[in-house]
Amino acid sequence: MRVAFQGEIGAFSEEAVMALYEDVDLVPRPTFETVFEDVVNGDVNRAVIPIENSLFGSVHANYDLLQEHEVRIVGEIQLRIRHNLLACNGASVDGLLKVHSHPQAIGQCRQFLKQRIPNAVVIPAYDTAGAAKMVAQSGRSDEAAIASRRAAMEYGLSILAENIESNHQNYTRFLALSMEPTPRETLNESARHDWKTSLVYSMKENVPGALFKSLAVFALRDIDLFKIESRPLVGRPGSYLFYLDVEGSEANEHVELALNHLREIASYLKVLGSYPRGKTID
Amino acid sequence: MRVAFQGEIGAFSEEAVMALYEDVDLVPRPTFETVFEDVVNGDVNRAVIPIENSLFGSVHANYDLLQEHEVRIVGEIQLRIRHNLLACNGASVDGLLKVHSHPQAIGQCRQFLKQRIPNAVVIPAYDTAGAAKMVAQSGRSDEAAIASRRAAMEYGLSILAENIESNHQNYTRFLALSMEPTPRETLNESARHDWKTSLVYSMKENVPGALFKSLAVFALRDIDLFKIESRPLVGRPGSYLFYLDVEGSEANEHVELALNHLREIASYLKVLGSYPRGKTID
Repeated sequence: MRVAFQGEIGAFSEEAVMALYEDVDLVPRPTFETVFEDVVNGDVNRAVIPIENSLFGSVHANYDLLQEHEVRIVGEIQLRIRHNLLACNGASVDGLLKVHSHPQAIGQCRQFLKQRIPNAVVIPAYDTAGAAKMVAQSGRSDEAAIASRRAAMEYGLSILAENIESNHQNYTRFLALSMEPTPRETLNESARHDWKTSLVYSMKENVPGALFKSLAVFALRDIDLFKIESRPLVGRPGSYLFYLDVEGSEANEHVELALNHLREIASYLKVLGSYPRGKTID
Repeated sequence: MRVAFQGEIGAFSEEAVMALYEDVDLVPRPTFETVFEDVVNGDVNRAVIPIENSLFGSVHANYDLLQEHEVRIVGEIQLRIRHNLLACNGASVDGLLKVHSHPQAIGQCRQFLKQRIPNAVVIPAYDTAGAAKMVAQSGRSDEAAIASRRAAMEYGLSILAENIESNHQNYTRFLALSMEPTPRETLNESARHDWKTSLVYSMKENVPGALFKSLAVFALRDIDLFKIESRPLVGRPGSYLFYLDVEGSEANEHVELALNHLREIASYLKVLGSYPRGKTID
């Protein structure tokens, strides 16, 4: 099975792939657009993308790509994001002149960098694993990368400092994508609590209590919600896109009826997929 | 009136301050924590902070600070984020060897940098306006900063390229904070549509349809919602914090009754403030 993800080998997305699937051919891609295209073109069987982070919120760009492409969500996993300072064997923290990493990782480790190596030049890289690869290839002992433990193993680097992110409550939720929806026969009709369905919808404008009515279609059928978020549509005041994760799969009769009910009153609805609830990797 | 914001003079937050208030003493601060402390200590009369962005979602860190401090939201404004390439007079795009900016701004302008100055070294800075200040002080014609038009004016830099961000649907919503709530007598009782109240709450765990019930307290009183977001609490599966912006001020009888009703059923509730609905600056 071929699985695409954004970044280099050793990226957090790759860690999510490995936690979700065994025996895979990893297909690293430079951008999320190419990851989605790979799935649509059949170049890969699955893709894994980040969708929300406990500190930085939802990745709206990937919600947009989910709406644009005919892909389906078929799985999820939550991963603790741990940043490490990696360098070639023999390097020491005090001897570092340059630190490479993705801008967001740099931001999350700013305090560590300021306190421990205030004079090192920080250089932004395309992704954390790519930064680790570059440091390994340079062979220099005065350069380091901020990346995952997995990237250290992949590129043969030493870990000079562990978990250097300022806030340790840093988790990213990843989604697995496929062109084929989860087969209906595998959707357990009875175990509603173990499944999730993700959707995006809009309500007709100027309808009082529109959001409440849309949630009523689930509440009236005792279907619980795992996520709700309103996203204001830029340039259209009063218009929103709603992201919803509800309990149960589409194969569940109650969920199916609720979705049909929502179609009656929504101006737009896209069901992104049904999938088993994912675990958290600490 | 003294108003604190995070960043240097020329930061987007400063632009938000100027759009909200006239005749202010600007108080630039290095971190959001110091901005909040300034308000609490009475060192400033107001502070202005970013709370959500149309591409990157809610700033959870600032929601956390709003919960921790006894400050009140007293106003809001929405600002289009436009990035520009700034350099000293006489510099040209082709002659640039280094570009300085905040990591997030660098990320938003990656395509421009890749296409127009692929060989320039990109150097992350603490904030966009600080990068502009540094370039101005260097006097060099081979360095540039990515920052606002206002930063160009402030530091006497030329604009080599305008609106270089890849996605132009880039808006940030800012909140104005004060130790004093908006005075009750200024809260217009009748014009409910022109006011907003922001709150954060949690529901008791394992209550079926808890979120739906909490929204019912507003829907039953015909109070519309402007924002809703569930934030999963890390390490407590099934527990959520809800961010809600509802129509009307606390001084409105219906809103007051709804909040009392919500207190009956919520396990935690903090009203962050009532304020007039803000405009959008394009």
